[in-house]
Amino acid sequence: MLRTHDCGSLTTGHIGETVTLNGWVQTRRDLGGVLFIDLRDRSGIVQIVFNPAYSGDALAIADKVRSEYVLSVTGKVVKRDEETINPNLATGEIEVHITEIEVLNTAKTPPFFVEDGIEVDESLRLKYRYLDLRRPEMQKTLMLRSKASKIFRDFLDENGFVDVETPILTKSSPEGARDYLVPSRVHSGEFFALPQSPQLYKQLLMVSGLERYYQIARCFRDEDLRADRQPEFTQVDIETSFLDRDTLLNMMEQLMVKLFKETIGVELETPFQRITYQEAMGKYGSDKPDLRFGLELVEMNDIVASSGVKVFASVIEKGGEVKCLNAKGCGTWSRKDIDDLGPYAARYGAKGLAWIQVKDGEFKGPIVKFFTEQEIEAVRERTGAEDGDLLLFSADNKKVVADVLGALRLKIGRDLGLIDDNVFKFAWVTDFPLLSYDEEAKRYVAEHHPFTRPNDEDLELFDTDPLKMRAQAYDIVLNGYEVGGGSMRIYKREVQEKMFDALGMTPELAREKFGYLLDAFEYGTPPHGGIAFGLDRLVMLLAGRSNLRETIAFPKTASATDLLMDAPSPVDPSQLDQLHIKLAKKPEDNKVKA
Amino acid sequence: MLRTHDCGSLTTGHIGETVTLNGWVQTRRDLGGVLFIDLRDRSGIVQIVFNPAYSGDALAIADKVRSEYVLSVTGKVVKRDEETINPNLATGEIEVHITEIEVLNTAKTPPFFVEDGIEVDESLRLKYRYLDLRRPEMQKTLMLRSKASKIFRDFLDENGFVDVETPILTKSSPEGARDYLVPSRVHSGEFFALPQSPQLYKQLLMVSGLERYYQIARCFRDEDLRADRQPEFTQVDIETSFLDRDTLLNMMEQLMVKLFKETIGVELETPFQRITYQEAMGKYGSDKPDLRFGLELVEMNDIVASSGVKVFASVIEKGGEVKCLNAKGCGTWSRKDIDDLGPYAARYGAKGLAWIQVKDGEFKGPIVKFFTEQEIEAVRERTGAEDGDLLLFSADNKKVVADVLGALRLKIGRDLGLIDDNVFKFAWVTDFPLLSYDEEAKRYVAEHHPFTRPNDEDLELFDTDPLKMRAQAYDIVLNGYEVGGGSMRIYKREVQEKMFDALGMTPELAREKFGYLLDAFEYGTPPHGGIAFGLDRLVMLLAGRSNLRETIAFPKTASATDLLMDAPSPVDPSQLDQLHIKLAKKPEDNKVKA
Repeated sequence: MLRTHDCGSLTTGHIGETVTLNGWVQTRRDLGGVLFIDLRDRSGIVQIVFNPAYSGDALAIADKVRSEYVLSVTGKVVKRDEETINPNLATGEIEVHITEIEVLNTAKTPPFFVEDGIEVDESLRLKYRYLDLRRPEMQKTLMLRSKASKIFRDFLDENGFVDVETPILTKSSPEGARDYLVPSRVHSGEFFALPQSPQLYKQLLMVSGLERYYQIARCFRDEDLRADRQPEFTQVDIETSFLDRDTLLNMMEQLMVKLFKETIGVELETPFQRITYQEAMGKYGSDKPDLRFGLELVEMNDIVASSGVKVFASVIEKGGEVKCLNAKGCGTWSRKDIDDLGPYAARYGAKGLAWIQVKDGEFKGPIVKFFTEQEIEAVRERTGAEDGDLLLFSADNKKVVADVLGALRLKIGRDLGLIDDNVFKFAWVTDFPLLSYDEEAKRYVAEHHPFTRPNDEDLELFDTDPLKMRAQAYDIVLNGYEVGGGSMRIYKREVQEKMFDALGMTPELAREKFGYLLDAFEYGTPPHGGIAFGLDRLVMLLAGRSNLRETIAFPKTASATDLLMDAPSPVDPSQLDQLHIKLAKKPEDNKVKA
Repeated sequence: MLRTHDCGSLTTGHIGETVTLNGWVQTRRDLGGVLFIDLRDRSGIVQIVFNPAYSGDALAIADKVRSEYVLSVTGKVVKRDEETINPNLATGEIEVHITEIEVLNTAKTPPFFVEDGIEVDESLRLKYRYLDLRRPEMQKTLMLRSKASKIFRDFLDENGFVDVETPILTKSSPEGARDYLVPSRVHSGEFFALPQSPQLYKQLLMVSGLERYYQIARCFRDEDLRADRQPEFTQVDIETSFLDRDTLLNMMEQLMVKLFKETIGVELETPFQRITYQEAMGKYGSDKPDLRFGLELVEMNDIVASSGVKVFASVIEKGGEVKCLNAKGCGTWSRKDIDDLGPYAARYGAKGLAWIQVKDGEFKGPIVKFFTEQEIEAVRERTGAEDGDLLLFSADNKKVVADVLGALRLKIGRDLGLIDDNVFKFAWVTDFPLLSYDEEAKRYVAEHHPFTRPNDEDLELFDTDPLKMRAQAYDIVLNGYEVGGGSMRIYKREVQEKMFDALGMTPELAREKFGYLLDAFEYGTPPHGGIAFGLDRLVMLLAGRSNLRETIAFPKTASATDLLMDAPSPVDPSQLDQLHIKLAKKPEDNKVKA
């Protein structure tokens, strides 16, 4: 019996119709010989009723069904009695009086309830993912993800972007994160690598004159996993030729507008705020600031450099900085509340946390006595301190101050309820540094990647002050999450060579690793640039979830394991022989099951 | 200067407008101090003109440009003089008189011409793929592929299919082709495998109640490559619950109708012909018959079993068969033409090839004398032999007869010009055998895959005559190519266990390899089935190409090498240490560069 309707689609408009439904038994209640079953399919739930008055043989069959049995049923849609109407159910005004039933399959009792909001160990959910995904909230997230992908594709297609698939079996790159490797059977001793992104392929497509490319691309990083990382993840990968940065960013804003409107009905305001990396770090202590609330950090160096607070003066003397966060309204916190911030700040590198409470117009706290009256007034003016405020000071090198006060700003913003979960506040962070210095490797490394174009006016700094160089790179930030990023790319061979040189690559190594790219740059490469959006994270934010695994049908655990299929797993030795590799040790010697 | 128009979009409707164009120099001609450049972008070509009369400084700059330079130019669209109109160019009625030029990048002379129809060694094209893809025919194919993907997605989305991404890092499977393996860094001695298809994941999504799934999925097979294989390929992967076979196939026909109409403007007729595997093998000697022409094979056993042709009689006695192909109109072939068929047939296993020519109403040829008059009449009637026909006979076991006459049918159909390249003839091949017997492994193997549902009425044959069992499997065939295939799946644990048992898997091994699937079948699995289309091959046929590599942006060679990036390649020994593997030999010992 093929279904005629979806369970969740039935309304009072269907009353009197005979319908066939397919679905799973959600619940089953026997009320004095009349059987009520909530039947579930992906569209929702409807109540079906088996009654001796009209169900005939079907009742006896239905009597044997249990939770998660799969049924095909036929019956008539009927209005419920007033007193049995269920206002919590979309189909709550009707029920279906069944005359025919077929049990398509039986079911054992599942290891957890197939319903939203269960509190079950995640590893059990992952092992039985096929049951976990039956839960409506998981199905809704998967459908939201599918819809989001479709919206990306529709928008990009309408704007002339060509969907091109690039290889998964590709070449190991010396820059970037750790690669997943794939031994070659044909070429003994050689390996493919799974791509960390299609970066070089998409640039080569621009050299090919394709002009506008996109791909919803699987990417791979063999990194130690954090809560918001997966070994394989998905990015919406975009590249274009001949566009300038602002034209591209404006187009991407329209893409986000469409995405948020058509998935969750939110109207985004454009243009998105644009903020330089310098400003973001200065005001928010973060390159992915949550702009849903204020609590901006305030620079204090000029005011406190000559104050009596020894630690301030000495930090400044050593080239560090002192900044203040005015925790509005936290002036009433107890000494213990304030002290509790110390260990939190320490996690971000703080060696201590100086503070001032403002009470009855006066500054209070251990450090106040070291300030002059003028200094206090200057602090008051700079921070806008008022009665009931709490001023928090961090004094250290730039990075630690940003980390500490950036983290405190978020914590206090949350604690004070300043963050509205229904607000989606996008921003572009621009003008990132081109390079940073890796103390361990004793060389410069690319902040974005080695193919990022420097700001035109900074090019001469390659030879004089590389750390001062800014990149034509941009991140798109939403509510404190980086949801995408990109850059204009280098498209002249001599600039790319300068960049490789700055990264400490000899011309020979650059040639060995990226010869094809340097060659390509000599055959008429157009100016180009692009962006990639993290699809997993965007879907997470759209769905209001807090974990990437909730947005992925079959995710891996934090130890990169697929608990459902039990992968990775040992393989037959003959498979390794064919691949010309051996295990370094016997598996049992160093198996690290986690 | 941002472009205002695409090169190929300019028409007489733009005359008088000032436009800015970006593109590549296709050709450059200097006619008495006036410079004509064909400027190319992905939309097409337009002629731009630099003339001292209006170009000012731009002329001197333009004078230095060469093929494949990247330009940005601004000028006025002007109607060409009547005598210079180029009817071969979409923009041939106009030209652009340039007043401003910027050279965005220079170019060396490319290793081959950037134009259609070049005859260049394919390895050179693959090494410089970024130039090869600049050629209009390659760009058109990539754009066609993008469009085809979009049409698949639009259709499936409209029909309620949810796009779900399944893992690339998954588990090695004991059935099927050879897996690509990925060593795990976290779990020493263990490996992921790249998926040969998302088969089990999509079935688990049906267990999850997702009801309709699709994915344009990358798949991997580490097989020795033939011309029409790639180590990674793309399939449009589809699965649905609660539908019966015919409803699914009808829906897929509508999908093909939309695809062919919207890409190449071809109106397909539905319903597609449906033909059983038995009939396809019988009439066409192939399970992927080219139905654009007739030349059906004819069974001869009953007629020739008692004839004087010894080889016929003895083959039939041994359980083999004799079949005939009436090569209409080839009766005039010379003896040499006919003899030349012998070595061709031998490639498909023929030990010899008997034949009869029909001339002036009479049968001629070496075997005719062994036939009685009645037998000749019976042959004439059965084969419809007429004057000018050539009857070709194959006598051997069933497989060889099918291979030989199937191949001859295709060759003769081509030679006789019976095949219309503009016709797209789809068919469904159904009722495949469930199992075949692998002589080497001495066990049954699944013809489709081990999850294919047997025909309901054949279930009892598991215990009596497994080779007689037919599967609820279907291939979709187009012009002699298999462009897709699928099946209804087993959804009851006991049937799946019977199937594993028939394949010689012990319950323990089945449990170890597919325990999660057997478990899943116990928790309310709906009836389900699906199909997968080979996207590469479909695009190849849509684009009228004869090689899968022409449809893939960055394909691999027949020895599974990426010539552009030079992958696979040796990796740093420290990378192998981290993955707990060693090379079986030093790379230089057995490097097999091809």
